Amino acid sequence: MKLTILGSSSALPTSERYPSAHVLNAHERLFLIDCGEGTQMQLRKCRIRFGKINHIFISHLHGDHVFGLYGLLSTFSLMGRKTPVHLYAPENYQNILISHLKDFDIKLSFDIDFIPLKGKDPVQILDDKYITVTSFPLQHRVTAFGFLFREKPAERNIMKEKIEEYHIPSVRIPAIKKGEDFITTDGSIILNEDITIPPPEPLSYAYCSDTKYFRRLSTFVNGVSVLYHEATFDKSLADLAAITGHSTTLDAAKVALDAKAGRLIIGHFSARYKDITYLVDEARTVFPATFPAIDGKSFDVGNINDA
Amino acid sequence: MKLTILGSSSALPTSERYPSAHVLNAHERLFLIDCGEGTQMQLRKCRIRFGKINHIFISHLHGDHVFGLYGLLSTFSLMGRKTPVHLYAPENYQNILISHLKDFDIKLSFDIDFIPLKGKDPVQILDDKYITVTSFPLQHRVTAFGFLFREKPAERNIMKEKIEEYHIPSVRIPAIKKGEDFITTDGSIILNEDITIPPPEPLSYAYCSDTKYFRRLSTFVNGVSVLYHEATFDKSLADLAAITGHSTTLDAAKVALDAKAGRLIIGHFSARYKDITYLVDEARTVFPATFPAIDGKSFDVGNINDA
Repeated sequence: MKLTILGSSSALPTSERYPSAHVLNAHERLFLIDCGEGTQMQLRKCRIRFGKINHIFISHLHGDHVFGLYGLLSTFSLMGRKTPVHLYAPENYQNILISHLKDFDIKLSFDIDFIPLKGKDPVQILDDKYITVTSFPLQHRVTAFGFLFREKPAERNIMKEKIEEYHIPSVRIPAIKKGEDFITTDGSIILNEDITIPPPEPLSYAYCSDTKYFRRLSTFVNGVSVLYHEATFDKSLADLAAITGHSTTLDAAKVALDAKAGRLIIGHFSARYKDITYLVDEARTVFPATFPAIDGKSFDVGNINDA
Repeated sequence: MKLTILGSSSALPTSERYPSAHVLNAHERLFLIDCGEGTQMQLRKCRIRFGKINHIFISHLHGDHVFGLYGLLSTFSLMGRKTPVHLYAPENYQNILISHLKDFDIKLSFDIDFIPLKGKDPVQILDDKYITVTSFPLQHRVTAFGFLFREKPAERNIMKEKIEEYHIPSVRIPAIKKGEDFITTDGSIILNEDITIPPPEPLSYAYCSDTKYFRRLSTFVNGVSVLYHEATFDKSLADLAAITGHSTTLDAAKVALDAKAGRLIIGHFSARYKDITYLVDEARTVFPATFPAIDGKSFDVGNINDA
């Protein structure tokens, strides 16, 4: 899993920070999460192939998370796209999108498969060969959702030398990879753990933006490998965070800590912060493994370090 | 008059070229012409002050000329703007804008004074101390308008040494600046041309995008100092230009030639052209004083040269 940050600003972009958009590459499937203004230009700068994006997730209907979508869909169409786009967004967005495309004379060359987000509990919204995606409610000024991307456990790896040693026929290998023991022709049982090695731990990535702090959020993302959580403000602006339905650095860190996350990436920074170093330092007082979202930067979800 | 190009792409932006947006600075009034996706980020990169933009002109309702407007208005609002924005756009845009702002929960901190564009003839849509702005119809797939910005003639400059020589009282100066002769106390007539020098020629700038070629267009922009005209395609793609309602390099150059324009800037380049040099060269075969629109580049409208 590789995560690329396309935009790390909050509602007011700066010359360095574009509005929210992330791309998660999981097994060469590209998932676009939010689509702020300029997303298509950022995709080009990061040399991410448009044709590989088949799933787009919109967390909530505020412009800094959506205003790049019309241009992106229009560009897909101009490029002659035929493959459907699966669009996951708050349920009232479907009519808004349809009427806006009509207003601007945009006839898409492909279908949009609209999957409405709703409810007050986590819902599995995607299940493919390699991963599942779950949406869960956030708490913001408008209805908002977070997303949890989880790799499915891979199969166990069978050791080549054991195949030879025990003369394991290839027809038995799929079952062994799933965890079954092997029974030899003379009836002896070879334990699965003696002929296979376990697969790497499945990775997971959660996206939480925009939201104020609430206790239940950490249960939605429990044990996640990498948590992205908005941190619009520093701790001294907790009052402003509460009024605007946003989080501080410490709120984000607290969610990561309570969820026992592996790593925390903070972003959605207010334009007031030219240098975000002290926001990261502040979060690290609660959750040391915190890293900043930076436009154009990619993270290996299985291996984020300070280096 | 200073023109800054914020975007020079056609519908499909590239990593180098953003969608259409120009800023004209005329006597420290900033006029934003079209507002493609990413305009607010380009304004920041060019260090253009948002607060000085009071007039926004939208040529037509295609996304690559409009999709930056929602974000820009939202940003104005987040910055606490109180000054109204005068928005000139095709008449059906008013309802679209209102419903879209509502859909996205955007409550502006300032008023929008909407001036509908319509009609089949040039219409003066703005008249202030220094300049007038006229809209005129283009011919595109949807209703579209061009804009002509004209400086008003300045007053004549009175020569300081003549004030002393003829003892001209200050109360007479305004009339002399307007062209009146001066009559001395002994009744002799001093000709205006002997005591004043003429002001510089008024400058003008015209914006023509998007449009196919039509003969009457050159009459709308006759004698303009600098003509911006779209040139989406090279001359070999004249058929595609006709189908899509766009112009080739030669179409743009012909309009400039027929209008006796001082200079021609071409832009709105198709993404198929990585290097636009040959588009400029092609236009120069018809109109030698042709220059390319380049994102972030400024032109002094009174003095565009190859240097």
